[in-house]
Amino acid sequence: MSPGTLLGARAGVVNVGLDLFAEAIRAQEIPVEEVSWRPPAGGDGELVRLLVANADIRARVSAANDKAVARMQAARPAWVDVRSLRDVLPDLPERTLFHSGPAIPWDRMCGPHHRAAAWTAVFEGWARNPDEASAAIAAGRIRLEPATPHSTVCPMATVIGPSAQVHVITDPATGATAYSPVNEGRERTIWNGNPDQSTVERLAWFRDELARSLSAALHEAGGVDLFGLFAQSLQMGDELHVRLPATTALLLRAVAGPMLEAGVAGPAAARAFRFLEENSLFGLPIVMGASRVAADLGHGIPDSSLVTGMNRNGIDFGLRVSGLGDRWLIAPAVPLTEAIYYSGYDISVAAGDIGDSAIVECAGLGGMAIAGAPTIAGFVGGSVSDELAVRDDMHEITLSTSQVFTVPATDFSGTPTGIDVRRVVETGIVPIIDTGAIHETDPEAGQIGAGIARAPIEVFRKALIELGVAWSR
Amino acid sequence: MSPGTLLGARAGVVNVGLDLFAEAIRAQEIPVEEVSWRPPAGGDGELVRLLVANADIRARVSAANDKAVARMQAARPAWVDVRSLRDVLPDLPERTLFHSGPAIPWDRMCGPHHRAAAWTAVFEGWARNPDEASAAIAAGRIRLEPATPHSTVCPMATVIGPSAQVHVITDPATGATAYSPVNEGRERTIWNGNPDQSTVERLAWFRDELARSLSAALHEAGGVDLFGLFAQSLQMGDELHVRLPATTALLLRAVAGPMLEAGVAGPAAARAFRFLEENSLFGLPIVMGASRVAADLGHGIPDSSLVTGMNRNGIDFGLRVSGLGDRWLIAPAVPLTEAIYYSGYDISVAAGDIGDSAIVECAGLGGMAIAGAPTIAGFVGGSVSDELAVRDDMHEITLSTSQVFTVPATDFSGTPTGIDVRRVVETGIVPIIDTGAIHETDPEAGQIGAGIARAPIEVFRKALIELGVAWSR
Repeated sequence: MSPGTLLGARAGVVNVGLDLFAEAIRAQEIPVEEVSWRPPAGGDGELVRLLVANADIRARVSAANDKAVARMQAARPAWVDVRSLRDVLPDLPERTLFHSGPAIPWDRMCGPHHRAAAWTAVFEGWARNPDEASAAIAAGRIRLEPATPHSTVCPMATVIGPSAQVHVITDPATGATAYSPVNEGRERTIWNGNPDQSTVERLAWFRDELARSLSAALHEAGGVDLFGLFAQSLQMGDELHVRLPATTALLLRAVAGPMLEAGVAGPAAARAFRFLEENSLFGLPIVMGASRVAADLGHGIPDSSLVTGMNRNGIDFGLRVSGLGDRWLIAPAVPLTEAIYYSGYDISVAAGDIGDSAIVECAGLGGMAIAGAPTIAGFVGGSVSDELAVRDDMHEITLSTSQVFTVPATDFSGTPTGIDVRRVVETGIVPIIDTGAIHETDPEAGQIGAGIARAPIEVFRKALIELGVAWSR
Repeated sequence: MSPGTLLGARAGVVNVGLDLFAEAIRAQEIPVEEVSWRPPAGGDGELVRLLVANADIRARVSAANDKAVARMQAARPAWVDVRSLRDVLPDLPERTLFHSGPAIPWDRMCGPHHRAAAWTAVFEGWARNPDEASAAIAAGRIRLEPATPHSTVCPMATVIGPSAQVHVITDPATGATAYSPVNEGRERTIWNGNPDQSTVERLAWFRDELARSLSAALHEAGGVDLFGLFAQSLQMGDELHVRLPATTALLLRAVAGPMLEAGVAGPAAARAFRFLEENSLFGLPIVMGASRVAADLGHGIPDSSLVTGMNRNGIDFGLRVSGLGDRWLIAPAVPLTEAIYYSGYDISVAAGDIGDSAIVECAGLGGMAIAGAPTIAGFVGGSVSDELAVRDDMHEITLSTSQVFTVPATDFSGTPTGIDVRRVVETGIVPIIDTGAIHETDPEAGQIGAGIARAPIEVFRKALIELGVAWSR
């Protein structure tokens, strides 16, 4: 199909940065759009043409994006419960495990996912040991599904089954709800792909005690307003993706009184408080669930180029766009070339970028709020001014600024919010994602570094082509 | 006495900012010291001459200051207990109340102190009502003493008696110990000079339950290392004098598990957690006590011009200096001309600068760390760059930078630490103190604003004269 057909309008010409070229065209009285354009590596004629919609289409897309962003910005998710996955998703198929990232068959899965899935099956009682579990999964007796289509977000290499304990996060005004598993901390864990028997015991404690204690506290408190709490922890140096000590301390503060008022026994409450005290990442899945609720509210607006999801499974990177329905665009996951590796490790042993946690960047947190967390300036060059430069880049590719999340270092301006597929392709600037690196093959190592990942540009190009098709209908 | 006698050496000449004048003197081969000098309002010939010590004296003072600052910097105070004042100071004289700030007779006391003293006497059971209490104090049947000589620091208009519950804060290596009363929050309180019957009930709850719960938790935890915790909350946007939500959340986190492990009953623990959850200033007296321990370690070094205490009672401002023993220098307390007043209030109804809390500035926190708290930039002009300018000023008058307290906004440099009497007089820059404003006459209003106070230059001039006398001995 020709660009003209595709866009249903006379296509103009985009000035790809050569001013003389623009002048030459303008002299011929052809409409010229001047955009801040970094020529893509291979030259991207078709994409460039797609960027040029006629005024009607531009107005339609702009209105759609305004609507999508306004809905996302209106989200006020609350942490209302902690329950078993089987309680919140009673129609879960038999013997099915949910994994982070886009759908992927067993034989393509990365090492951390293999280990996570096998031990999760052991925890569920579907196998006596990880080898037996792996064989059952390979043979299809235990099924694998991505968590994402089930309103569930899983950090890093997480794999969960029906006995997993998940946070229930709901937007009261709309009822939009998402789930995310309780964070396991920094020891041997499913989410970091280095589980062992101690992991199974911790998950059993989540199931048998911790979840009940938290659930009782949340019922007593009538839920905890999350975006208000996140806005506060942003003033406390958290960016809420890799740095969450303030977030977790505020969550602990919010449940401590109510847990005891609800009648939870002292020793059980003490174990809960100790777990939160010692695990500053406890808040991460809660941030992810709240971000997912916000992103879901912005999703499904026809014509909108708003990004409503990014996820990774170590092999593939997935992108969800508001105007493209429930189909995720896929590109290869990026290697973590910019991570800072712990002593003794480097990228050669690292799994690819992994986890559903990039949903927080979709909601204006994490990489979008990195200027709020001076302690991780090392991720992007070392100084606060480097973080501010990243912030400026992220403003280039976002539709709005957060009305809730502000950053002291930028004189309390809102964080860049609402990634726009058009602007990413147009500028060549991709969203940055704050993340951890985990070991691909070592069953004991777990996390081996931290830093930023850059989303792959290819997936945004694919999305723009799909959007172009939709706009031309 | 002549400068020559005073300093025991040939006095040189200080260049007071007029370069030509310095050149003229230098041409006569008289030794000239060039210092960053803002001519004091009245011209201060004697002080200027005092600044010129011979090399021997300069070396002695410098060595003394190094020693004093090193001792202060080595402090590692821990929060170890909460007890009644009568438990920790068993030799407390009969029917005596401690008040904040320098010693002051009843008839000179400010309004908030009058109300605080009267209601504290009621709480102690020494009077049936505040009028009876006031009469008893005026008649000398109830005595008033400053808290400071008793290793005790009291915020704002606080007055305490033997039944008050105080934090016990100790440096394990040296045994240096200080006390400070449990913060009452933002309602009707002693410390804000607006007590009523509800205040008495809250103090009784402190005595009968809260202190025991906290004490049990602290014993179970083996104490809480405070400077490590403060270093963390400085990364979270607290400056630890007027802004303490992170500090208090981290303190709650530190005691929550241990309190229950110590066997404190659920309902009592829940009430403790709720109180800390709802009162972000809970941490302030703990910061004051820890700062006092550090300042005490730096105190008592002969010849040292290090400031080891600043306090105010609404009428007078007191200054303690390491090399001047236990005598406090006194000047009039400053009016709070730079505070931001709540709607309906202004400086005409405000009490003068009040409280022992300026001890935190002596330890490198509060005003010294204001660049760590962008949310209170409004105190000094509104922007982070205004805060950085204040930080630069404070570096001009301090001997060192903190080895423990760093601020993200200044690329994690240490806060200005160790105020030097010489540098204050020399530069005309006085320490800034983060503070609250309270109502002078209204018995109900309490806090009516917040902002900065600037310590009075006169008291530093007096101290320098005293130091000059000491140096010349």
